[in-house]
Amino acid sequence: MELLEQLILAPVAAGVVGLIVAALFYVRIKGLEEGNETMQRIAGYIREGAMAFLVAEYKVLGGYAILVFGALAATLGVMSGVWFLAGAFLSLLAGFIGMKAATLANVRTAHAASSGSKADALVTALDGGAVMGLCVAALSLIGLYGVYVTYQGSAELGTMLHSFAVGASSIALFARIGGGIYTKAADVGADIAGKVLENIPEDDPRNPGVVADNVGDNVGDVAGMGADIYESLVAAIVATMAIGLTAEADVINQLMTDSSLSGEIARSTAVALPLILAGLGLVVSIAGIFVTRMMKNSAPASVLRMAMVLPPLIMVGVTAAILPMLHVGQSVTVALAGGAIGGALIGLLTEYYTGHYKPVKLVAEAAITGAGTNVIRGMAVGMESVFVCLLLIAGVGLLADSAMGDLGMYGIGLAAVGMLSGTAIVMTVDAYGPVADNAGGIAEMSGLDPAVREITDELDAVGNTTAAIGKGFAIGSATLTVVALFSAYALEVQHARGEGGKVLELSLTEPKILIGLLIGAVLPFIVGASTMTAVGKAAGAIVKEIGRQFDTIPGLREGKADPQPAAIVSIATTAALTQMILPGVVAVAGPVIIGYTMGAAALAGALAGALAVGASLSLFMANAGGAWDNAKKYIEKGGLPGHPKKSDAHKAAVTGDTVGDPFKDTSGPGVSILIKVMSVVSLLIAPLIANV
Amino acid sequence: MELLEQLILAPVAAGVVGLIVAALFYVRIKGLEEGNETMQRIAGYIREGAMAFLVAEYKVLGGYAILVFGALAATLGVMSGVWFLAGAFLSLLAGFIGMKAATLANVRTAHAASSGSKADALVTALDGGAVMGLCVAALSLIGLYGVYVTYQGSAELGTMLHSFAVGASSIALFARIGGGIYTKAADVGADIAGKVLENIPEDDPRNPGVVADNVGDNVGDVAGMGADIYESLVAAIVATMAIGLTAEADVINQLMTDSSLSGEIARSTAVALPLILAGLGLVVSIAGIFVTRMMKNSAPASVLRMAMVLPPLIMVGVTAAILPMLHVGQSVTVALAGGAIGGALIGLLTEYYTGHYKPVKLVAEAAITGAGTNVIRGMAVGMESVFVCLLLIAGVGLLADSAMGDLGMYGIGLAAVGMLSGTAIVMTVDAYGPVADNAGGIAEMSGLDPAVREITDELDAVGNTTAAIGKGFAIGSATLTVVALFSAYALEVQHARGEGGKVLELSLTEPKILIGLLIGAVLPFIVGASTMTAVGKAAGAIVKEIGRQFDTIPGLREGKADPQPAAIVSIATTAALTQMILPGVVAVAGPVIIGYTMGAAALAGALAGALAVGASLSLFMANAGGAWDNAKKYIEKGGLPGHPKKSDAHKAAVTGDTVGDPFKDTSGPGVSILIKVMSVVSLLIAPLIANV
Repeated sequence: MELLEQLILAPVAAGVVGLIVAALFYVRIKGLEEGNETMQRIAGYIREGAMAFLVAEYKVLGGYAILVFGALAATLGVMSGVWFLAGAFLSLLAGFIGMKAATLANVRTAHAASSGSKADALVTALDGGAVMGLCVAALSLIGLYGVYVTYQGSAELGTMLHSFAVGASSIALFARIGGGIYTKAADVGADIAGKVLENIPEDDPRNPGVVADNVGDNVGDVAGMGADIYESLVAAIVATMAIGLTAEADVINQLMTDSSLSGEIARSTAVALPLILAGLGLVVSIAGIFVTRMMKNSAPASVLRMAMVLPPLIMVGVTAAILPMLHVGQSVTVALAGGAIGGALIGLLTEYYTGHYKPVKLVAEAAITGAGTNVIRGMAVGMESVFVCLLLIAGVGLLADSAMGDLGMYGIGLAAVGMLSGTAIVMTVDAYGPVADNAGGIAEMSGLDPAVREITDELDAVGNTTAAIGKGFAIGSATLTVVALFSAYALEVQHARGEGGKVLELSLTEPKILIGLLIGAVLPFIVGASTMTAVGKAAGAIVKEIGRQFDTIPGLREGKADPQPAAIVSIATTAALTQMILPGVVAVAGPVIIGYTMGAAALAGALAGALAVGASLSLFMANAGGAWDNAKKYIEKGGLPGHPKKSDAHKAAVTGDTVGDPFKDTSGPGVSILIKVMSVVSLLIAPLIANV
Repeated sequence: MELLEQLILAPVAAGVVGLIVAALFYVRIKGLEEGNETMQRIAGYIREGAMAFLVAEYKVLGGYAILVFGALAATLGVMSGVWFLAGAFLSLLAGFIGMKAATLANVRTAHAASSGSKADALVTALDGGAVMGLCVAALSLIGLYGVYVTYQGSAELGTMLHSFAVGASSIALFARIGGGIYTKAADVGADIAGKVLENIPEDDPRNPGVVADNVGDNVGDVAGMGADIYESLVAAIVATMAIGLTAEADVINQLMTDSSLSGEIARSTAVALPLILAGLGLVVSIAGIFVTRMMKNSAPASVLRMAMVLPPLIMVGVTAAILPMLHVGQSVTVALAGGAIGGALIGLLTEYYTGHYKPVKLVAEAAITGAGTNVIRGMAVGMESVFVCLLLIAGVGLLADSAMGDLGMYGIGLAAVGMLSGTAIVMTVDAYGPVADNAGGIAEMSGLDPAVREITDELDAVGNTTAAIGKGFAIGSATLTVVALFSAYALEVQHARGEGGKVLELSLTEPKILIGLLIGAVLPFIVGASTMTAVGKAAGAIVKEIGRQFDTIPGLREGKADPQPAAIVSIATTAALTQMILPGVVAVAGPVIIGYTMGAAALAGALAGALAVGASLSLFMANAGGAWDNAKKYIEKGGLPGHPKKSDAHKAAVTGDTVGDPFKDTSGPGVSILIKVMSVVSLLIAPLIANV
């Protein structure tokens, strides 16, 4: 038991170390040179746009947080509201710091590239990403440790953990959807206007949409993604802890190899274990970040791929070594290994479906007969990837379940924790991508030498690959987390009904459960429809505004006058902030309404429907989007002889990419978070609806 | 009880009358004039192509049927195999006769239109459709009556009904997917080649793909749709009868208003009732067909819409009048009315989302900024329609469930039967559409006066609206049927385990059920991916072949030489027959593999996952496809001032339509049938896997 008390300090100790390292990286980046005046001016536009968006978004989220705080304080007590705020605040804090670092690193990466050093540029972009990666992992673990240490042994621990998770989840949903709408409205709008209407190249300084596009990379792929990953880690840990808290004693006792450690010790171990393992994962990840930086002179693609895939595997070894000391059986290692290996495999499969392999080549070839066949083929690739990836996730679940017997659901939760044990480094590499992308944009807009753009393009291309791997981890862990949350939810309802209370009947033969299933199946489509509409509308408005600027600003087309990027930034910001509200409210209010009107059983059905649809739909959208994107790039690189850039086939592929943009960066991630938000909200309100 | 014995003759009596009426219509059509020699020649091409496809398809299906017959004979007995063959054969027979009639009626409709009489053209097309409509409804009821009367009171009734349903379902799946691939490969191929590559108008006689396109309308929208609707009716009736057969006695007794009629009488009534109600529905529908023909001089759009929506509502009145005589409570009427009204509402909502209303106008407007935004907007409309339609279906289920208390699942089955009580007339109007469409094609290719095309175009446009309504009924009833089949499946497994057998635990907290849910969620995507790929590939091959003909046949471009339509027909046929196999096997073998390897509980989870994903995905695909199609037509009709036919906006809308073609006519319907096939196969194999 003493060891357990020491090990539980791992998450907070690793968290503090992580924050210190993040601070060092931040200071280092800030000290680097920024390049010439034009670069500084453009980087300033991007930074200001991004920060302005974040501040505006935080105001909206502040209003939301106050509302939910009030509701929680009135129903589950003031402290539930406080921990909800803490979960939300730490997410926003990580996003703020991380995005600040990313918007400092972009121009410095461009400058490093202009000095001709690819290695320096790589490390600068990596450090920029690492601030986000470390803050995300550290703040989530510190926050969860805070809840744990405050309520250890208290009956309130569950509710406070759930409150913290709801705070994390709802911020993730809004940040991901708001950021996603922003980035894709700007991207699609700037692309269409630039390439199709005005026939000017990507990132051309005359295009007033380019700054907004670069701002979008930051608010979507850095801040939005950060909130998403923060939430993933929190939800996976909380789901597993919640099962540890509420499962029956004789089930929990099976965790221990020594039967004399039954009862309270087994319970404490079951509750603390997920947090401890995540803490050790952070230690491994911090080491991994330093190793990756040291390998800056190797081929970036393979270094970064290894950086994402290896830490979870190392964690498996660490776990196997530690479990005997805690008298915990090695079945935990099997579950964790399933998650770690499964996550890596999903990432690599995602890369296969969205990288320059056979599926993407077929999508590119389909562009020869037009945009229609290109879009059809991309859909088919996306659908096929669902088949492979979701079966793999199911396989991981099956493995964890079989390994842990009666503790099967706990094992599935641990598999999710295992999949996310490399969170800090995965997020580092994820955030590195948009920094490199931004650096390229700044180089282009500042008219730097084409050789600079070549370096940033190479770094950016690697970022696309690693983004695919990152998505694999995110969606895989989301699915497993939601499966584990089912059990936590049912246990919580039963617990709230008390001994002798009516047994919660969740059989699929109950009409209410199946009707709930259909209602739940609807919710991902609401999020999908509203986000697709938002991007489509806002992009249309941006295209019109760009057209207006080209028509009315004398000399703009000839490059003799400056465009007005602020007008585009403003359109994107307004669209994102107003359009993120409906899907956000659906996700949070949906389970509450279903639970209060139809009861706890129908809500379980709705969660199952949302899980089945949400997991598959988000994989479909993410991978179809990735395939279209890279099919376009494949053609641009000359993959189809006789069909160069600007050919009809290329234009057809641009259409596919346009459709794929909101698929992969707005709707797909939104749907993936939706199912987690629904689950943690259900878990939180379980005591309130247990007797409806 | 005497009344019950008389009423059970209703389905077979109505069936025989239906077949006689169908024969009369067939003879009448055959006696009509065919028009000039060119028309006869082109109609001959279409008829031969369609029949050649059907014969080739039947050979493949014959092989499949022999395999399944063998498997069933070996496991469930020879008679199970025989009834499976009967279910399959009657479906093929209806498809054969119906398509024969449709391919006779198309040219005669064109001829009637060329005589200037819209009313005559309307009635000719309607009669052509009615042969299919009547055969579909009559043969399914006669077949089910045959099973019922042979095994009445025997323990084998359930298995034989399930066998018949599996025969119906698997033919529906293959016919729908094979026909869907054929029709859309030809449509997309001919469209792309004609409009985009060669810049020639629709149905131009120089385009060698036009004949295949017209053949496709018959094999997809007539034969494929017929098999689909036949199966829908069979599955809805069988699901409800199966619950009546296996539900516990004290639950079944609640059906009767007179408690002295408990036990055997209650059971007989519960089993026979769905078949009786479907028989009465056929009587009402036959009357409806005659009334519709009499109204040939009114506006076709409103007449045909009423023809589809009214019969189920009349059936509600008939049911209310009959139930007291059978001592059955009026809660059955409520369930039936829920289905009838719900079906009509879904149809009208589908029309709203896919007709020339606000959603479609927005999709059209999005085409102004390009194909990308057009596709995005269409997706959003499709997703929004899922929200509204699926919630409505859930509402119907909730109503039926609440009305019938412990018999809730039986009520949900009855709601599906109620939704399908107008099957004969719905299918008549559904098959009328492609006949009118073909008539237009023949008129164009034969160089008839543009005034003729105007008449056929008007009739065709009505067909598009009614097709949307038909799809609403089909998908709505499919969803409710699958929900009802859940209960039948669980009861069957429990029944097979016998008294004292282990209770089938289908709780959502079981890890295996949730993992099954994920596996089930995958299956609709396999069907979607393989059908989208098949259409994309085959369309590409057709585009190339058309290009080849234009390049190598001297004088074709100038209209001085004839194209070679047989080459296109051959490409489409081969593609359809080879590519329908994988999705078909997945649907049939999927549940068998899951059941045998993971057990009855995991299979239930898989059915739930497939239901949630399949119901929503098929609605999404059907309605997004419809919206793109009509957005294109809206632009062609001058809906966007300044963006006429052949403008960039129109070309963008054509891209959306191209994507929508396989969505709405291949993948969407395929996914919808998939979930029914999986459910009836699971029901059939339930006794075999009960103890896995």
